[in-house]
Amino acid sequence: MGKKVQERRILGIDPGTTVMGYGIIEGKGNNATLIDLNIVSMRKISDPMEKLKQIFEQTIAIIEKYLPDEMAVEAPFYGKNVQSMLKLGRAQGVVIAAAMYKNIPIAEYSPRKIKQSITGKGSASKEQVAAALKYVMKSDEPLPKQLDATDAVAVALCHFFQNPALGQGKSYSGWDSFVKQNPDKIK
Amino acid sequence: MGKKVQERRILGIDPGTTVMGYGIIEGKGNNATLIDLNIVSMRKISDPMEKLKQIFEQTIAIIEKYLPDEMAVEAPFYGKNVQSMLKLGRAQGVVIAAAMYKNIPIAEYSPRKIKQSITGKGSASKEQVAAALKYVMKSDEPLPKQLDATDAVAVALCHFFQNPALGQGKSYSGWDSFVKQNPDKIK
Repeated sequence: MGKKVQERRILGIDPGTTVMGYGIIEGKGNNATLIDLNIVSMRKISDPMEKLKQIFEQTIAIIEKYLPDEMAVEAPFYGKNVQSMLKLGRAQGVVIAAAMYKNIPIAEYSPRKIKQSITGKGSASKEQVAAALKYVMKSDEPLPKQLDATDAVAVALCHFFQNPALGQGKSYSGWDSFVKQNPDKIK
Repeated sequence: MGKKVQERRILGIDPGTTVMGYGIIEGKGNNATLIDLNIVSMRKISDPMEKLKQIFEQTIAIIEKYLPDEMAVEAPFYGKNVQSMLKLGRAQGVVIAAAMYKNIPIAEYSPRKIKQSITGKGSASKEQVAAALKYVMKSDEPLPKQLDATDAVAVALCHFFQNPALGQGKSYSGWDSFVKQNPDKIK
């Protein structure tokens, strides 16, 4: 009997306080297919706490709609000023908590790591990443103009490339224990 | 008939990536009583994602144990470097998401605002705040040596002072809609 090819659905998220991008891909063997991508906009919300509430509720709604097996987050570790980093940290924390609540294992990647993984170059421009993505996704549909959503697909794809098979990847250290505790989640 | 004195239970949280302090007070009219205070330590956890998981799960456990009506968070807006602010933002975001999940309204106060509210001076030292707290709490028990937990009581007390009656305070803007949507939560 041949080895069964594992299917995995990966949710990629690019958290931000104004716009949150998300993309869902399905991986099978060495191939990945784009399921959906979109953005959640917080532009019309002025209260910072309400913005976080929107991020929390929408992340849970996305997980419940697409039922991903794993989540990958684009996580910059450096930024231009302390206040923007605090806001970004809060948005990241809320997204991470939503995934924890839904029991989805989380991996995070720096923008540089994502660009390297997708295009082979850490300094690739957003447009280059989008073009590379279009190539690897083999999608006939045009990529959306929202580059935030494209970045979210990129982090999902980066996670797919970095972790060829479930449980063998370089995900966060809670992963192994998650696999042991949730054997029914492993297809 | 006399006016009914409102009772409120306030959870104060001082989030951090290494230690999270929490304190619960019960307010009735102009008086506040200390219910409990303690810390959650992440010192023995090395993985950053596991630290956040501990913060998320423990915050939910604290809310389920003490059933607070409101939560107040100590939230510094400035810090010494971008990386520490990102980590702090994540810890704050996880605590905020836990409260949102449990449907608890959230208010946040800067350390300076808390010190002003408790001691009348924005530049008060931690020890002065602890001494002032001991006075206002009218507790016979000695304050714990963990100043992180003391800060958490201070933010709960600051919120109590700033919002003399439920629904009339300067809490975050979601507060009014919360009150309308959850009349059963208002005693």
